Amino acid sequence: MNRLTLALDVMGGDFGPRITIPASLQALEQDPMLHLVLFGDSQAISPYLANIPHHLRQRINLQHCDRVVKNQQGLSYALRHSKGSSMRLAIEAVRDGAAQGCVSGGDTAVLMGLSKVLLQPLAGIQRPALVSNIPTIDGKQSVMLDLGANIDCSAETLVQFAQMGAIFAENNFDLVYPRVALLNIGIEELKGLKNIRDASQLLQQQTDLNYIGYIEGNYLLNGYADVIVCDGFAGNIALKTLEGTAKNIFSLLKGTKKQPPSLIKKLLIRIGKYALRKYFVQLKQFNPDQYNGASLLGLTSVVVKSHGSANQAAFLYAIQQAAWQVRSEIPNKILIGLEKN
Amino acid sequence: MNRLTLALDVMGGDFGPRITIPASLQALEQDPMLHLVLFGDSQAISPYLANIPHHLRQRINLQHCDRVVKNQQGLSYALRHSKGSSMRLAIEAVRDGAAQGCVSGGDTAVLMGLSKVLLQPLAGIQRPALVSNIPTIDGKQSVMLDLGANIDCSAETLVQFAQMGAIFAENNFDLVYPRVALLNIGIEELKGLKNIRDASQLLQQQTDLNYIGYIEGNYLLNGYADVIVCDGFAGNIALKTLEGTAKNIFSLLKGTKKQPPSLIKKLLIRIGKYALRKYFVQLKQFNPDQYNGASLLGLTSVVVKSHGSANQAAFLYAIQQAAWQVRSEIPNKILIGLEKN
Repeated sequence: MNRLTLALDVMGGDFGPRITIPASLQALEQDPMLHLVLFGDSQAISPYLANIPHHLRQRINLQHCDRVVKNQQGLSYALRHSKGSSMRLAIEAVRDGAAQGCVSGGDTAVLMGLSKVLLQPLAGIQRPALVSNIPTIDGKQSVMLDLGANIDCSAETLVQFAQMGAIFAENNFDLVYPRVALLNIGIEELKGLKNIRDASQLLQQQTDLNYIGYIEGNYLLNGYADVIVCDGFAGNIALKTLEGTAKNIFSLLKGTKKQPPSLIKKLLIRIGKYALRKYFVQLKQFNPDQYNGASLLGLTSVVVKSHGSANQAAFLYAIQQAAWQVRSEIPNKILIGLEKN
Repeated sequence: MNRLTLALDVMGGDFGPRITIPASLQALEQDPMLHLVLFGDSQAISPYLANIPHHLRQRINLQHCDRVVKNQQGLSYALRHSKGSSMRLAIEAVRDGAAQGCVSGGDTAVLMGLSKVLLQPLAGIQRPALVSNIPTIDGKQSVMLDLGANIDCSAETLVQFAQMGAIFAENNFDLVYPRVALLNIGIEELKGLKNIRDASQLLQQQTDLNYIGYIEGNYLLNGYADVIVCDGFAGNIALKTLEGTAKNIFSLLKGTKKQPPSLIKKLLIRIGKYALRKYFVQLKQFNPDQYNGASLLGLTSVVVKSHGSANQAAFLYAIQQAAWQVRSEIPNKILIGLEKN
């Protein structure tokens, strides 16, 4: 692994430095060639950096700023008032070459807006997309895009998402000719919205893509497609529904902790959990924390969006995603891939 | 309970009479005032009716027909060629007063199309909607619509869905002033598609509705709203994703049956399942079979659509739903409710 610097907006997300700094330290521990530039309120951050080993501290560059960008008065207001904020400074660090990629848990629309202005889309890209990995029942993963950056999309935009997603999946999962599907409400050619049907026609003509047709919401986790393409509205609804369903079922299973009334029952439940542990481990793959970190695809540099509600493990995963994408030169591979078409 | 006749299309769905007839017999067993008119291929049906008790057989009226409507060449083709099919005959039985409601597991679009033509929407209804109950984590249920009948909707149509859904929830869950939410990709007023934002504005002015704002996909199961309103595209994606996620997690848990290699392990897993049985029962509420039976809301009569892949328990639930709606006079209550506005 080669040396790499990432810029982190450590103030974004619901929990701020309490989550982001421990995750950063974990990332540095695991990746000896990683350096981090942290943007945020030094007063809030410093307590978490006290007494950490020298070999970690020397790979951290803390840049104080006391502004955090919010999106409560509309996107254009947020963009206009973003100067000096932790998110904007992190993106500017990438633009200015001080870092090769950045991670933020801040507002998705603002992150996309600022990234488009400061980092530029790749040549030929109509609209960058938000992409994420989702787990499959057989222990593998699929790629899904767009997840909320573009709420309505033309057929041509969906085709471009398919191209970017295929390149992302090829590199991410080491696949040749990954299977691409369009998310729709039926599998027959006539189903769904017009832009999806038109995109389907266009994709059938693209011989460089392994287009396999429509996929419905109930098969998202079954590994039938390596790349699942949709507009940002449907993608956001589907991904959040998937996460919410999984989290709710987990919380029911975890509820077993609460109320074992007798010692014997307690012991039985212990034995039960031990006997079934293998399946509990398998279930964990559906924990949304395991695949946090949606990426902005189609920009000249790597930008990873962490969930607002990400915990430490989830923010760590987002940092690792960004590091992987920089080292795999994903933006450049997308540019080359699109030029071939 | 009063006497009631339902018309069933027993050929629709993936499994036909093998599933629909045993479910019908179970429904008759449980509901002594229920009579059924079955439409389908008598050769395929008869074996399942042989040797059944007289008190069930005398409440069955079998009407032979050998045509099944499919939707492979477009909706208008299917509608034009629907004469004499089991689905159409079942709807015609309702139109002609031979039955008070009908159930079919056939194609949703064809069922909606035929129902609109043969049964008519209620006065003032722009577009009938597909509605279903979904389970919540606290063991209750919410109502969700539209689930696929109307893939794009105006703000006004969404408001009408909210009104119909509220009346449905009031009667279904015995609620006063049920909480109504719009499915969206964020909770801030500015998020999402224009028709949803416009519908939100309109709903805020409707004092007869308890509108609580937007709900995101990850909270669908949390019981935050009694009525969840969306267009049919988003609703179909969300419901199927919910079902697919739940089914996949169940299949992982069920996988525990497959491979216990030793007797001791087998015993441990038995004990484990026994100790955790309470939680497995709680999980069952998320089994899609427990809330099969989307209903066409906004028509002059009761029409229930069973899942194509419904098993016996699920088809039984659809019959029970139809019986409940007829006895509760849901169409009439919606008409009265809408007239008040």
